[in-house]
Amino acid sequence: MQELLAGYPVIIEFPVHWGEMDAFQHVNNIIYLRYFESGRIAYFERAGFMEYMEKSGVGPILASTACKFKFPLAYPDRVLVGTRVGEIGDDRFTMYYRAVSTRHDKIAADGEGVIVAYNYLEQRKAPLPEELRMNINRLEGRA
Amino acid sequence: MQELLAGYPVIIEFPVHWGEMDAFQHVNNIIYLRYFESGRIAYFERAGFMEYMEKSGVGPILASTACKFKFPLAYPDRVLVGTRVGEIGDDRFTMYYRAVSTRHDKIAADGEGVIVAYNYLEQRKAPLPEELRMNINRLEGRA
Amino acid sequence: MQELLAGYPVIIEFPVHWGEMDAFQHVNNIIYLRYFESGRIAYFERAGFMEYMEKSGVGPILASTACKFKFPLAYPDRVLVGTRVGEIGDDRFTMYYRAVSTRHDKIAADGEGVIVAYNYLEQRKAPLPEELRMNINRLEGRA
Amino acid sequence: MQELLAGYPVIIEFPVHWGEMDAFQHVNNIIYLRYFESGRIAYFERAGFMEYMEKSGVGPILASTACKFKFPLAYPDRVLVGTRVGEIGDDRFTMYYRAVSTRHDKIAADGEGVIVAYNYLEQRKAPLPEELRMNINRLEGRA
Repeated sequence: MQELLAGYPVIIEFPVHWGEMDAFQHVNNIIYLRYFESGRIAYFERAGFMEYMEKSGVGPILASTACKFKFPLAYPDRVLVGTRVGEIGDDRFTMYYRAVSTRHDKIAADGEGVIVAYNYLEQRKAPLPEELRMNINRLEGRA
Repeated sequence: MQELLAGYPVIIEFPVHWGEMDAFQHVNNIIYLRYFESGRIAYFERAGFMEYMEKSGVGPILASTACKFKFPLAYPDRVLVGTRVGEIGDDRFTMYYRAVSTRHDKIAADGEGVIVAYNYLEQRKAPLPEELRMNINRLEGRA
Repeated sequence: MQELLAGYPVIIEFPVHWGEMDAFQHVNNIIYLRYFESGRIAYFERAGFMEYMEKSGVGPILASTACKFKFPLAYPDRVLVGTRVGEIGDDRFTMYYRAVSTRHDKIAADGEGVIVAYNYLEQRKAPLPEELRMNINRLEGRA
Repeated sequence: MQELLAGYPVIIEFPVHWGEMDAFQHVNNIIYLRYFESGRIAYFERAGFMEYMEKSGVGPILASTACKFKFPLAYPDRVLVGTRVGEIGDDRFTMYYRAVSTRHDKIAADGEGVIVAYNYLEQRKAPLPEELRMNINRLEGRA
């Protein structure tokens, strides 16, 4: 299992709720995005985004998201979600997510999303703060 | 249909989303509470709660909720939710909800909930403002 | 914490998903019912309902549900849900749920629901099978 | 509004539920995918997928999904979702979705997804049935 999540510095684990399944008796497609969202928030916490947002008004906005479904999740199962950051631009970066079924030891879905820095006080895009860029690079083990 | 909702002064209508069904191929139980919540918010708007809350800091808190399931909803269907207020106390009142399947012309569920007035600025219960009490009584056609 | 759940033979634990919070920045009301549902399913598994349903066509239907909100849950938190069965009738029984915030060591909500035995093959209510009644009593430590 | 959905042969409309908003007081990201799912199901119905699946065992599977967020939805609003099919391959096709805020007369999000034909009886991919290909082309106004 762990090798399926090698290279993802932030990993969370949680059980599937029975009620997350839909009429096809698999976890509904949109729930994978909920799982990725939980991974994203956990990453934000580890990188200090939430504190930075409170003191500065600059926080993250999800600009886009995508998901490839590999293996259908179902109840009962416990899911691991790994999150990592790839390319970092001036005002944005790309996050990659991987959801793993611990019951089947398989990748359930791979996702990605573009996060844009946003100044909520001035209601416009902002450069990615240097402090957060450094925190991300430290988490990712990059110089 | 309309007679099923006689006595409910606020009625909303919306379609069932396919994804609201669960593995038993009916609308999942908790979604009925989502529907009632939408009815409650519509009622609050009609009774001026939201504006009152913004100017005074006193707003509603849901203290309890209950639902009797009568007929299972499924996709496709359009749902009507009727909302009315029953007993009004010093600091609380009881709301009654009814969800109706328009496809089957049947009551899908009956619900109720106790709403308590809460002063969000002072973080404690508050008497139900006279203005809101009057608005509710007017909506309900009571003297 | 454990004393808050004394007398509940089936207990599950899971984290709050950030996205389960609503615009009031607390876990949305209907999500408590999702948590209770997960507790109910866990209880059904422990009492052998799911296997019994597959072999006989007789399974559980949720006839009603109710929830008293005691303390607002928010992200981040881990929730414990305890489930127990109270009164058992000829064709139905009452389940009690308790959701506990492990972060605050407080009861977040107490719930209950009536479960009716249903013969899915014959599409009508059924007596509660003796085997399941015994399994429940064993779980509950009743003679 | 209508020009924002020009070229989308299947359009559905529904209100935002208050409870679909998250702690940022906008409709939560995953709900956009729920809206697209409702558009997809409506398209499937119009193209005869559901009937075809019942008689043949060949139905659609969502292989991937993506969403670009353009304008944040919030309660109250009514949403239009347009759905169209683009490229059609031997065993798959691409669907495009657009969610429009009727309150603001703006595109809220654009999405897409790859749908693969799947034989549920034989548990493997299947060629896209000619009947469905023709139905899609007819809906899309293609020769």
